[in-house]
Amino acid sequence: MDLKVRPIELDAAGKTIAIINNHDAKELGVRPMERIIITKGNKKMCVIINTTADRFVKRGEIIVYHEVREALKLKNSDIVHAKPRGALESKKYIKEKVRGKELEYKKYKAIIFDVIQRNLNDLEISSLITALEINGMTEQEVYDVTKIIVETGKRVNFKGAVVDKHSVGGVPGDKTTLMFVPIIAASGLTIPKTSSRSITSAAGTADRMEALAPVEFSISQIKKIVDKTGGCIVWGGAVDLAPADDLFIQIEHPLNLDPLFIPSIMSKKISMGSKYLVIDMPSGPDAKIKTGKDFDDISKKFLHIAHKFGIKTRCVMTDARQPLGRNIGPLLEAREALENIIMPKEKNLINKVIVLSNTLMKLAGRKENAMEIIESGLAEEKLREIIKYQGGNEDIKPEMLQPGKFRHEIRSKESGRVKYINIKTIAVKAKMCGAPDDKKAGIIMQKQLNDTVKKHETLYTLYSESRNKMNQAAKGDVGFIVK
Amino acid sequence: MDLKVRPIELDAAGKTIAIINNHDAKELGVRPMERIIITKGNKKMCVIINTTADRFVKRGEIIVYHEVREALKLKNSDIVHAKPRGALESKKYIKEKVRGKELEYKKYKAIIFDVIQRNLNDLEISSLITALEINGMTEQEVYDVTKIIVETGKRVNFKGAVVDKHSVGGVPGDKTTLMFVPIIAASGLTIPKTSSRSITSAAGTADRMEALAPVEFSISQIKKIVDKTGGCIVWGGAVDLAPADDLFIQIEHPLNLDPLFIPSIMSKKISMGSKYLVIDMPSGPDAKIKTGKDFDDISKKFLHIAHKFGIKTRCVMTDARQPLGRNIGPLLEAREALENIIMPKEKNLINKVIVLSNTLMKLAGRKENAMEIIESGLAEEKLREIIKYQGGNEDIKPEMLQPGKFRHEIRSKESGRVKYINIKTIAVKAKMCGAPDDKKAGIIMQKQLNDTVKKHETLYTLYSESRNKMNQAAKGDVGFIVK
Repeated sequence: MDLKVRPIELDAAGKTIAIINNHDAKELGVRPMERIIITKGNKKMCVIINTTADRFVKRGEIIVYHEVREALKLKNSDIVHAKPRGALESKKYIKEKVRGKELEYKKYKAIIFDVIQRNLNDLEISSLITALEINGMTEQEVYDVTKIIVETGKRVNFKGAVVDKHSVGGVPGDKTTLMFVPIIAASGLTIPKTSSRSITSAAGTADRMEALAPVEFSISQIKKIVDKTGGCIVWGGAVDLAPADDLFIQIEHPLNLDPLFIPSIMSKKISMGSKYLVIDMPSGPDAKIKTGKDFDDISKKFLHIAHKFGIKTRCVMTDARQPLGRNIGPLLEAREALENIIMPKEKNLINKVIVLSNTLMKLAGRKENAMEIIESGLAEEKLREIIKYQGGNEDIKPEMLQPGKFRHEIRSKESGRVKYINIKTIAVKAKMCGAPDDKKAGIIMQKQLNDTVKKHETLYTLYSESRNKMNQAAKGDVGFIVK
Repeated sequence: MDLKVRPIELDAAGKTIAIINNHDAKELGVRPMERIIITKGNKKMCVIINTTADRFVKRGEIIVYHEVREALKLKNSDIVHAKPRGALESKKYIKEKVRGKELEYKKYKAIIFDVIQRNLNDLEISSLITALEINGMTEQEVYDVTKIIVETGKRVNFKGAVVDKHSVGGVPGDKTTLMFVPIIAASGLTIPKTSSRSITSAAGTADRMEALAPVEFSISQIKKIVDKTGGCIVWGGAVDLAPADDLFIQIEHPLNLDPLFIPSIMSKKISMGSKYLVIDMPSGPDAKIKTGKDFDDISKKFLHIAHKFGIKTRCVMTDARQPLGRNIGPLLEAREALENIIMPKEKNLINKVIVLSNTLMKLAGRKENAMEIIESGLAEEKLREIIKYQGGNEDIKPEMLQPGKFRHEIRSKESGRVKYINIKTIAVKAKMCGAPDDKKAGIIMQKQLNDTVKKHETLYTLYSESRNKMNQAAKGDVGFIVK
């Protein structure tokens, strides 16, 4: 069927969508959400069809979103040819997974190909994600999917012995990476660290680092930085290493499901050429890893895949019973990392940094000691070098990083000792103050676990650029048990 | 946040969608596919957010689709207030179902409310449908969901003892309803039959009936027809009895999953006030019901729910080893039904109609016999009465219904007896000829199971309004085993 193009000045968030008249859709034999192939000259594209009544799109017309117009170089009133897209094999495979079957390599390959080509729509990907979550994946399936995500993405080659760290997350105030990367790079290993921005937390590593330097770079820019300094701390989202993974995450996040977390993490390590890896698993009553059994189960899965891809890996259980260090929020966390790399003082932060760094260096056959690297000033020097090559101010001082202008102290109603800190409550309050979008929003903890507290003494202080947000955050349970 | 309205002349297929600038979305704290509430005067609405870059939608602007503009009566440059929609409880319940939990009444109520209000998006509904498919539903869950679908829909009250028939489908050429309804109505029972159009078959009952009379009516029009004649055969899709069910089906169909089939069917029977019901379960090697065990399992589920709602129900296993009667395709099937109600001749069709009709009449305490109702002419008279009240030509004669102008005979390569007919192959060929959209497209079977066939004798004939489609349909396996 030939159709006359009407472009629309809207994008479809990366999806390839076109709109045709109900009657034309019927004639083509497609229903809304199904796909047609449109051809213009020697270019063709698979698009998802929306249909509409005559008053919006007349018969013989096709409205194309920005993405389609660009890809096919369409102008108003161009004529394109449309035909129905045949049935997708990958839809059958998704249904097999729904039925509880284990899928083999070539079926995942077909699925992931159709995800990348945008042949599968959100409904179908949502159904796949849900089926993977419920029915689980065998070790072979996790391996195959990881491999396919790598094969369909980019790979980068860095000089030297490439190492990495990954945290499964869950502890507020975790600025470990900002200290870990310079220590490791100072030891002579290569650590091209890509990090996420906050998805659900008060700050992601990319948000923290952004208080010190820009974090958005192309792969070739990252390669230049790392080849110069041995390390970087950049945002992974701009890198486009693994397009399949990015597309899965777009569906997983709103569903709050995460069945592909191992392929998602490991594929990026493989693409970056990591040979040694330490996985940080913060554990505590309110963290993702609650028990030793959780740690064992998840470690086993990581180690299995890492081994199959030849990445020497250690999993380390770390303490998530309270925020790490005293500062929470992008700018406050960057400041605390800077303070502690200049002069170690915050015990629970320093301990974690040292344990993780030494574990990784030992794994990679190094004899250096992390505490010595900090105390010698080499770590600070390396951090300033990375800041400089990422385009930040290498002479930055902690006192130049000042939090939001409104502050509010949360005080204890009891005297006694701090027996329990609810890390979720603390994280939520930091977010309510505006973190991570308000970089200056956050919390400073005056009291930590086992500290002695007097009645009316300050437990922690809220900071925000918005008095209103701060007042909201000040309400409700304080998240401390003092007795 | 206040935003300036730009309406867009597109509908979103019933969804309430608005598009705002990336930065405004960030400030509101919403990501694409999440929801915001927009308010204009005393009207408010929950809309799904798409986000886009500056070049499409400027900061401070909001593009609203047709559905939103209509509902809030918005004009260009109107100012609306936007605020984030809080977390949906129903999302938590969907996740519980993903985790394998049985959900209680009030949780399904919250989910279904949010489906109807369009608060849950397609991704989330897809995840729910997949979880229901994989984890299944207890009898209590099926009961609760059925009840909620009824409660959130409309109910109709007809005069007399309301009865119904439902087929779980799967046999091509099934024009039973066109004969069954007039027989039942002639016996004095009330049968307000709503039917579907074809979804995957060559013809749905609504498509068949449409060759004789209009089928799209509002509930009040249906009530008038049924109160006059005791019966009707109309399209259920225009009736809007159960909005929740309609919305679930919009997701289930593209996913090709059907976990809610019992609530979907039973809720409509309840809404129509049925007291007696016969469920037709066509069974055969290529049908949905393949074995006696399939029949027992599905029957048991139907009977349980029917019993709880006080509907006296019988399930009947019928023959689906070959097409029913000889004609397939909307017009050809209507013709065969009309021929056979005038003068019974097609044994497998007549047998099925008689068995189902007598089962239902007996269940409802009637002593009439279906064959006598046909032979007395009362059934034909009733069919013509229904055709008349639905606005068709009550004097229609079979010879006025002529199939497509192109025809092609499929001949046997062997001599022998017909041992097997693949009903899926026959159905696909009828669809390839253009059915159901081309009402005149279809197939007439010259041979049936156990018939003797000579080499080169005609097995069946294809009809179409398109020579091209017919030629396509003529290719490939004929779907018969003759030996």
